[in-house]
Amino acid sequence: MLNNPSKWQAYLHGQQQQAIEELLEFIRIPSVSAQADSLPEVRRAAVWVADRLRVAGVDSVEVLETDAHPVVYGSWMNAGADKPTVLIYGHFDVQPAEPLELWTTPPFEPELRDGRIYGRGATDDKGNMLAPILAVEAMLRTEGRLPVNVKFLFEGQEEIGSPDMPKFVQQHADRFACDMIFSADGLQWAPDQPQLVEALKGIVAFEIILRGPVSDQHSGLHGGGIANPAMGLAQLLASMKSAEGLVTVEGFYERVIPLSEDDRTEIARIPYDESGYLAETGARDTAGEPGYSTRERLWARPTIDVNGLTSGWQGDGGKTVLPAEAKAKLTCRLVAAQEPGEILDKIRRHVETHCPVGLVAEVKRTSSWGEPFLVPKGHESTEIAAEVLEEIYGKAPYRTRLGGSISVMTTLKQATGVHATMFGFAHADENLHAPDEFFRLEAFERSKLAYGLLLERVAIRQSR
Amino acid sequence: MLNNPSKWQAYLHGQQQQAIEELLEFIRIPSVSAQADSLPEVRRAAVWVADRLRVAGVDSVEVLETDAHPVVYGSWMNAGADKPTVLIYGHFDVQPAEPLELWTTPPFEPELRDGRIYGRGATDDKGNMLAPILAVEAMLRTEGRLPVNVKFLFEGQEEIGSPDMPKFVQQHADRFACDMIFSADGLQWAPDQPQLVEALKGIVAFEIILRGPVSDQHSGLHGGGIANPAMGLAQLLASMKSAEGLVTVEGFYERVIPLSEDDRTEIARIPYDESGYLAETGARDTAGEPGYSTRERLWARPTIDVNGLTSGWQGDGGKTVLPAEAKAKLTCRLVAAQEPGEILDKIRRHVETHCPVGLVAEVKRTSSWGEPFLVPKGHESTEIAAEVLEEIYGKAPYRTRLGGSISVMTTLKQATGVHATMFGFAHADENLHAPDEFFRLEAFERSKLAYGLLLERVAIRQSR
Repeated sequence: MLNNPSKWQAYLHGQQQQAIEELLEFIRIPSVSAQADSLPEVRRAAVWVADRLRVAGVDSVEVLETDAHPVVYGSWMNAGADKPTVLIYGHFDVQPAEPLELWTTPPFEPELRDGRIYGRGATDDKGNMLAPILAVEAMLRTEGRLPVNVKFLFEGQEEIGSPDMPKFVQQHADRFACDMIFSADGLQWAPDQPQLVEALKGIVAFEIILRGPVSDQHSGLHGGGIANPAMGLAQLLASMKSAEGLVTVEGFYERVIPLSEDDRTEIARIPYDESGYLAETGARDTAGEPGYSTRERLWARPTIDVNGLTSGWQGDGGKTVLPAEAKAKLTCRLVAAQEPGEILDKIRRHVETHCPVGLVAEVKRTSSWGEPFLVPKGHESTEIAAEVLEEIYGKAPYRTRLGGSISVMTTLKQATGVHATMFGFAHADENLHAPDEFFRLEAFERSKLAYGLLLERVAIRQSR
Repeated sequence: MLNNPSKWQAYLHGQQQQAIEELLEFIRIPSVSAQADSLPEVRRAAVWVADRLRVAGVDSVEVLETDAHPVVYGSWMNAGADKPTVLIYGHFDVQPAEPLELWTTPPFEPELRDGRIYGRGATDDKGNMLAPILAVEAMLRTEGRLPVNVKFLFEGQEEIGSPDMPKFVQQHADRFACDMIFSADGLQWAPDQPQLVEALKGIVAFEIILRGPVSDQHSGLHGGGIANPAMGLAQLLASMKSAEGLVTVEGFYERVIPLSEDDRTEIARIPYDESGYLAETGARDTAGEPGYSTRERLWARPTIDVNGLTSGWQGDGGKTVLPAEAKAKLTCRLVAAQEPGEILDKIRRHVETHCPVGLVAEVKRTSSWGEPFLVPKGHESTEIAAEVLEEIYGKAPYRTRLGGSISVMTTLKQATGVHATMFGFAHADENLHAPDEFFRLEAFERSKLAYGLLLERVAIRQSR
């Protein structure tokens, strides 16, 4: 808590015990979106969130249907038409809790230990998404109003990749009109070091299938006579990347926004420990595109990765077949301003022109698909978030990027034209998606305070 | 039957109906060496063969044990020490008969239809191996003696790759001392065209395993930071073969005996129908080492084939992993005078020097292992076989090679120093290893006659 707390800050402080009780209650709902038998629990979580928004004083709350799990929408638009509108995003579904035997206490019977709340969803994302609701409640209870208009969008399918959200957000695009978006599903660097994630990679996933003979053939009777799809696949995949690590698909890097000297300086400023990184992955060495540091490659350079290979005999020992077909599953992770559709076209052209003699190639899209996400320099919501983080942590946030892809960020961008700012207070060590997930009480307090300050800053900035 | 049949030929002719009854009885024993519940049946077949040899007048017959299925050994050594000794090889085990529903009549209830005997093992190898026994019997019954000394070696594990035979043959090498070897497990080109198979490929099978991170990693969080074993495997495999089809492993072709102009002329003389070959395999096109015809590559050039690929996610759709490891199973088919051990060493060196940065490679031998087999030009037993085939078919045999590997041919060569001649009368269209296997009665008659003539010719040649 800051010095000279305002009324809403004092209210939040006084309500901390009550807030913890509510978070425990929220976590007790096993809203596992991936498991069919949890469908009613995800819906119960939606209803719980909707009720909580109403109690907080949000005056227009709805549970909206998608083709799968419901969405909770709420708005408080009484700040006035001259005030900006802030959209806050989060999700109330959680990852499966299995393997249950690795939990110290049952995942849906949350427990307070050592200043932490243990339970599935504690940090991802129930603690984090409850914080802005509680901040808004504190302001409405103490001031009777919010400094800006606020909309809430909470989904119940983030943990299964938000398959229905693009369609849903498009259908309801008018509801989501706003000036700024903050996502309560996000991380800070460390308990004593804030961060702002300014870029995420896009993704395009596909499968390459090479077909040769009509069925597996005897490798003695036909080896050397006809092309081998497994060797052909190896040759084709190898043709897509140089030994040095450059992607050699024609035009792959065409649209990539190069890293500026400032970008590189910013990345180099952030502590990096190579041996720690190797220990984390268990890899023998780092490797990749020449001319870039490991972190630059991880955060800011596009990649192509083989996710799986399948062909011929895979059991024990050997079987002397010349396989009928060979398959590779791949994903490209994209950086701004690459476009997944264009990249897939380039891949298709590469596969066509490099398909070995005697084989027939097919390229099939698989599930993952997303545009890269890059917040423009000086983007207003990001700068406001930076101010708030600096005030709370006492130091400027790291400006980082992520190699992963979060589809809702680009979905919201496409529907509203607004770049979202990740403004969550989880930490990477809190066992997200793993047993003994927890949320620090300290982070919970900080997150509530941060959302209140954020709304105030937005109002001040906009009125300047 | 030839004009002016000798006594043994007349005897064989008179016994043809009896011989068919005996072959039917032999086929009724379901001696499937690959199936555990058929173990007693394989032994029953061994006893049947031993009894049949004794009835034929072979005077020293034994059922010998290996670590798996038994071997039947017999000899008739009364021709005199000045006469040559001929070893005749065959096998009494059969392939599994499944899928049973594709048989017109049950596989172990053989039936005569349209001049053919249908049943599992009819042609591979029961009909073919019974022929020399019946020929010897006819000679002993009519002449009271054989023109040469004869040894029989019949095994019960050929269809499972003869795993115990190298050890067995080494242990009993003294029994197998001989001047010539003929294998009754072999093919003729067509019912009206004989062939002599003069070369078989050797084989060395191995697995390459590339390891990267300690477990599958998130392809977004670590792609571009550490090496991907699946892509690394593709690059490594591609480095082993040029796009044109040349094996690029250093020294791979070092010991290969080049095809002479005569060899090439002989191969080119044999009818080849490219569209028929493509229809047989269902391949789109032929492909392989430049500078050689398809048949030269199939018969007389060494190959490397990927038999299987395994890595990462292989299920439906996509999974965004950077796999912990990737595996490829491979076989090289070798031609004379390549050596499997030396080739495996060269592969290991290639893998060591081409292993991508950040990955660790392992090369593991798998099951198949065999020396290439090449009969020297003018080899006596082959030339005698050629004379007999020309006499019976009325035309000279094609001199062919096979891309496959038959380990017993090199096992016998190593134990005795003698190159075996394949002298079998199966035809490729007789559904070997498939449903509705059959043996032509015409081929059965021809094979008995051929073995009798063969023994006579050996005696004549040797006495010149």
